[in-house]
Amino acid sequence: MAERKKPEPKLSSVKRAPRKLDELDKKTLQMIEGTALRVRKSIDGRVLPELRFPTRSLSNVKYDTKVGYFELGKGTSARALSVNTVKSFAQTLRLMAISKEMVENNDFATKREAYYVSKNWGDAKFNEQPESDTVMDDIEAMASVVGLSREQLRYFPEEHGGSVAGNLVVIDIDSETGKELEIDCTGFGTGSYSIPHSVEHLKFKTEAKFVIAIETGGMFQRLNNHKFWKSASCILIETAGVPTRATRRFIRRLADDKKIPVYAFVDCDPYGIANIYRTLKVGSGNMAHINRFFCVPQAQYLGVTPQDILDFKLEDATHPLQEVDIKRAKDALKNDPFFMAHKPWIKAIEQMLKMGVRAEQQALAKWGLNFVLEEYLPRKLANRKGFLP
Amino acid sequence: MAERKKPEPKLSSVKRAPRKLDELDKKTLQMIEGTALRVRKSIDGRVLPELRFPTRSLSNVKYDTKVGYFELGKGTSARALSVNTVKSFAQTLRLMAISKEMVENNDFATKREAYYVSKNWGDAKFNEQPESDTVMDDIEAMASVVGLSREQLRYFPEEHGGSVAGNLVVIDIDSETGKELEIDCTGFGTGSYSIPHSVEHLKFKTEAKFVIAIETGGMFQRLNNHKFWKSASCILIETAGVPTRATRRFIRRLADDKKIPVYAFVDCDPYGIANIYRTLKVGSGNMAHINRFFCVPQAQYLGVTPQDILDFKLEDATHPLQEVDIKRAKDALKNDPFFMAHKPWIKAIEQMLKMGVRAEQQALAKWGLNFVLEEYLPRKLANRKGFLP
Repeated sequence: MAERKKPEPKLSSVKRAPRKLDELDKKTLQMIEGTALRVRKSIDGRVLPELRFPTRSLSNVKYDTKVGYFELGKGTSARALSVNTVKSFAQTLRLMAISKEMVENNDFATKREAYYVSKNWGDAKFNEQPESDTVMDDIEAMASVVGLSREQLRYFPEEHGGSVAGNLVVIDIDSETGKELEIDCTGFGTGSYSIPHSVEHLKFKTEAKFVIAIETGGMFQRLNNHKFWKSASCILIETAGVPTRATRRFIRRLADDKKIPVYAFVDCDPYGIANIYRTLKVGSGNMAHINRFFCVPQAQYLGVTPQDILDFKLEDATHPLQEVDIKRAKDALKNDPFFMAHKPWIKAIEQMLKMGVRAEQQALAKWGLNFVLEEYLPRKLANRKGFLP
Repeated sequence: MAERKKPEPKLSSVKRAPRKLDELDKKTLQMIEGTALRVRKSIDGRVLPELRFPTRSLSNVKYDTKVGYFELGKGTSARALSVNTVKSFAQTLRLMAISKEMVENNDFATKREAYYVSKNWGDAKFNEQPESDTVMDDIEAMASVVGLSREQLRYFPEEHGGSVAGNLVVIDIDSETGKELEIDCTGFGTGSYSIPHSVEHLKFKTEAKFVIAIETGGMFQRLNNHKFWKSASCILIETAGVPTRATRRFIRRLADDKKIPVYAFVDCDPYGIANIYRTLKVGSGNMAHINRFFCVPQAQYLGVTPQDILDFKLEDATHPLQEVDIKRAKDALKNDPFFMAHKPWIKAIEQMLKMGVRAEQQALAKWGLNFVLEEYLPRKLANRKGFLP
């Protein structure tokens, strides 16, 4: 070990299929090489090189209901090479160089791994992960301008999460043979398909009529064990709370590709509405540069709604709103461009505040464990026009 | 809705296979009916009925290295029917009655759902979930005495978690046809098989030589994307931090059934060692009544070890131990029967405290993203005698 020293990470020598670069990969390499060339050119011309990144803040965000998600504005900030910026400048180029290598080798790194890889960069190494995360967010924002996500740069999130069951065949690529691989999500019994960290390369086959994104694992398991996906001809996706990037991107690509609607089934509380559903549908403010990839504008809110609490007589299965709930709900009404743009949402949130209670999706169990699939969902699905936007 | 009132949850009317009760199901029904009969008998005999539960506390736990996990002692406490206990007494019988119904209908309820189901019990309803959880823990402890787990009573955890990839065929039962269903865990591409909430009914087919339980999603994805499971002929299981009940039970049943060793691959810090690994291997103190089902005594600690930090020159990729780490490590040496019973562990933890640093499994990326599968794991697996107990 003592002698082992490598300036760059050694990538896999494991036998893998000869990498066929797809269009997005080529675009990624172009972006990286283009940036490197510009920097090289200014250096050759004795001009201090600079890198331009979109400004990542709410001040540089716009929301158009027709577009359907928070968009990045035109604001950019430059990082010019100087005594003060030389380190982060070098780190930016280093991370992009690794990205190029990973695309060519069909490999990836988590943000955490990227941080550790830098430990061999000498003076350019990151001391703490927040440093590498910031540089990576800049690169990600830069890439987003030309329509590339961080996953395209081969930097994957730590967590994937997200389970799938139902009328869907996922088409993946065997890393060894390079051949297509069909994964039938009706074939996993009480288990399910776990969404990988990156879903850009996946294709889909389905006859399903819609997707249900479900907040809790327990509800997902119930609908799966009873094959609700069969009786309702749909695809079940467990988000396990706020969906991860991979889960959001999976749902988005599936919905775009197959032109099927997405219905969110979450708890009736400000967290389920303003965090889980809102993030799924329009994304978040400070990550506006990635919303275009990760939000699901075609998502609609199936329930649980404040009105459901009355319609399904769940009053005695509710919980009082906590301070934090009330604050979150009021923020949504006062500061959130999404809710503020949709009257039905303003009404619903005001109704919740007036009632002063929240209800979990499990509360439907009051009427029987399977009331949810025998009556609640069928009744709701019979009136999709009534879904909240 | 107004007229809808049901004293007991209405269970599924969805078309399902005629339920074939297995041995454990029959045993579960016997336990429930036996308890109900005893209560009925004393009432008929004008004697106040009582229910006996094992005492759930560290004071009633014993650890035998040969047995390999914290065992429940002989201590029990009785809940005699009285004015003060009448409500919890009734709730206990109610939950057991629902359990019987669920076994007969091949259904299940999460602890959360069970709480809501009670909303139709009139005066016997639970006001907060902690109440129902406590009663359920008592029932679970009672059932454990005759070798039954809570899952056997059909009360499933909220979360499942746990992804699987590699040389394993999981055999499930199709809820509709009742026929066996084979799930090939080599066929998920970059995705994986997500473990269901209950795994009692699963069977396994495998030629794999061992199981690796992996702490982080990123590392699991790396080993899966590079098909490490193929080159090493093993099964990869992501625990995503401390493994859930379902994941622990899945690993345990797989290891017992197929007689294959389980190697834990976690971060080198007191949390990875004392929480994740220790819980996986011997279980926990306050849940001693279920350790017999959920711990994996055959598990061994592959790494990352404090010695690995030196052997693989990871010093500059470590982090200083925090107060909480030091406290946790010292507790392990002073109060944890498991670590106290194993000299190699005492040495290792003392070494970590002396070095004053921790290292994550991703730290290996310092030597290249795939150093972990090209050098670290092969070298470690070549010397399995060196694994910590």
